[in-house]
Amino acid sequence: MTDQFEEKSEKYQQLLDRLTHVFCHKIPFHNLIGFRFDELNSESCRISFDMKPELVGNFVHGMLHGGVTATALDMVGGALAAAAMLNKNHDASDEEIARKMSKVGTIDLRVDYVRPGKGKSFYANSRILRSGNKVAVVRMELHSEDDTLVALGTGTYMTG
Amino acid sequence: MTDQFEEKSEKYQQLLDRLTHVFCHKIPFHNLIGFRFDELNSESCRISFDMKPELVGNFVHGMLHGGVTATALDMVGGALAAAAMLNKNHDASDEEIARKMSKVGTIDLRVDYVRPGKGKSFYANSRILRSGNKVAVVRMELHSEDDTLVALGTGTYMTG
Amino acid sequence: MTDQFEEKSEKYQQLLDRLTHVFCHKIPFHNLIGFRFDELNSESCRISFDMKPELVGNFVHGMLHGGVTATALDMVGGALAAAAMLNKNHDASDEEIARKMSKVGTIDLRVDYVRPGKGKSFYANSRILRSGNKVAVVRMELHSEDDTLVALGTGTYMTG
Amino acid sequence: MTDQFEEKSEKYQQLLDRLTHVFCHKIPFHNLIGFRFDELNSESCRISFDMKPELVGNFVHGMLHGGVTATALDMVGGALAAAAMLNKNHDASDEEIARKMSKVGTIDLRVDYVRPGKGKSFYANSRILRSGNKVAVVRMELHSEDDTLVALGTGTYMTG
Repeated sequence: MTDQFEEKSEKYQQLLDRLTHVFCHKIPFHNLIGFRFDELNSESCRISFDMKPELVGNFVHGMLHGGVTATALDMVGGALAAAAMLNKNHDASDEEIARKMSKVGTIDLRVDYVRPGKGKSFYANSRILRSGNKVAVVRMELHSEDDTLVALGTGTYMTG
Repeated sequence: MTDQFEEKSEKYQQLLDRLTHVFCHKIPFHNLIGFRFDELNSESCRISFDMKPELVGNFVHGMLHGGVTATALDMVGGALAAAAMLNKNHDASDEEIARKMSKVGTIDLRVDYVRPGKGKSFYANSRILRSGNKVAVVRMELHSEDDTLVALGTGTYMTG
Repeated sequence: MTDQFEEKSEKYQQLLDRLTHVFCHKIPFHNLIGFRFDELNSESCRISFDMKPELVGNFVHGMLHGGVTATALDMVGGALAAAAMLNKNHDASDEEIARKMSKVGTIDLRVDYVRPGKGKSFYANSRILRSGNKVAVVRMELHSEDDTLVALGTGTYMTG
Repeated sequence: MTDQFEEKSEKYQQLLDRLTHVFCHKIPFHNLIGFRFDELNSESCRISFDMKPELVGNFVHGMLHGGVTATALDMVGGALAAAAMLNKNHDASDEEIARKMSKVGTIDLRVDYVRPGKGKSFYANSRILRSGNKVAVVRMELHSEDDTLVALGTGTYMTG
């Protein structure tokens, strides 16, 4: 029993590794911003990124652009929706998994901007509110490096 | 009477010119994407931008990243909220206008992704739903160059 | 050919009739408010209802409660999502149709309140933005009887 | 010092008492549903209500109507936005407080329906995300009596 579980778990870990690789290295707009994964499993996800001149929205105060905030929240939401879907389907065939992955996408996204995005670096995390066969709902937060809450979001994702 | 109106109108046009200059040239993240204004007045706004490799989200199909979509919708929403606010206050002092402009910001944003972002270029436009002294609500759309609707959004903006 | 088409169309019309009957007469909270259908087909839906003392939110000005607004927008959104789903599946078996109908439900709803709900009666209408096998996205509006826009909404619905 | 503080605090408590009285007894649509306050202060709010036949949305399974959910979330959001505003202004004149209270209203509301509303009674609670002089953002949750999460919401409120 333990072996079987570990085998499954290993397969799932491989799928997560591939997912983080794709999200960080194969998506040009993510490269541009410079996201890196701190954590990803079927229940939570955390990414971080450093402030840099190209990400500025308010040039007077040097604050993070709201579009970067939306992108970070959507990334951490979509990655978690995909990880939860993979967890339910990790014993499916590679073809079936590839077919399901190709359907993952954002249906809608709400972002609430609660404080100016001041900081040297930021992290975003997410947790699953609803995880179904077809649709997942995820809640996300963006903080600056000193744990100040900058923005919150909710995303609805297609998952199969 | 006509002269007075034209003078006011000229002042308002100068404010809009400054606004488009700031949005296109002074906001680094907008430069990165390459937005340009096609139209901006107190009732509607339209921007456009070309597809380029850095803006890709789905690397298999080469489609626009949802974060770029959110950024474009927020830009065309925020610019219109600011233009409507300036229209109401164009005879205020420069200091008062500067003070009000510094308060303009996104409170919340909803994006509905309705079709994959395929195209060589895209345009986003917006119209005002509610324009108050403190808060404006704006509805936005993103289309590809062949007029295919890609995404819709609604944004609530602080305006003073 | 024509006969076949008419037969299908008749079956679809029967399904729509059943749908409007259920939405108006079998849902207690809809009875309480007093919704009636003005129009329902696969592309648009319109309902109306009269103002009455129980629906008041602001007791000073006698205005419509925002919860009634949300309920009306969700009804006109959900009915259209269901009608669009039935249109795609009207030649399925009764069992399959019943199974699919049982899955129809609201995933998320956004309401923008743009003007106070003053009026003797109100109407809400909707149009489809995205109609897939699993998920539909619908945009809705509420007007008072003199065509004043009171609120707008966007809803995402499970459809199968 | 203590006396002064207690005096202020007493004034604030009177304002909250008046607010709960208005929300529960002077708003007809709230009476219809049967909301009661469990808690209200400047940082959190909780209401509860019993299931009854008129509140049913799904007549097959006897579940709570999504419009009641939206109404409960908006009530607990709006009451908290008002309580936070009163806390900042409790030493203002009665006229000023009345003027500010008359401006309190929902700008926009998002509801995420995560589980069917099954239960004998429900409670909704809220917490402030952003509390400014003009706008407050509030997050809300609806649970059934056994602490099952039914729905979440975010509301943006005008507060002055």
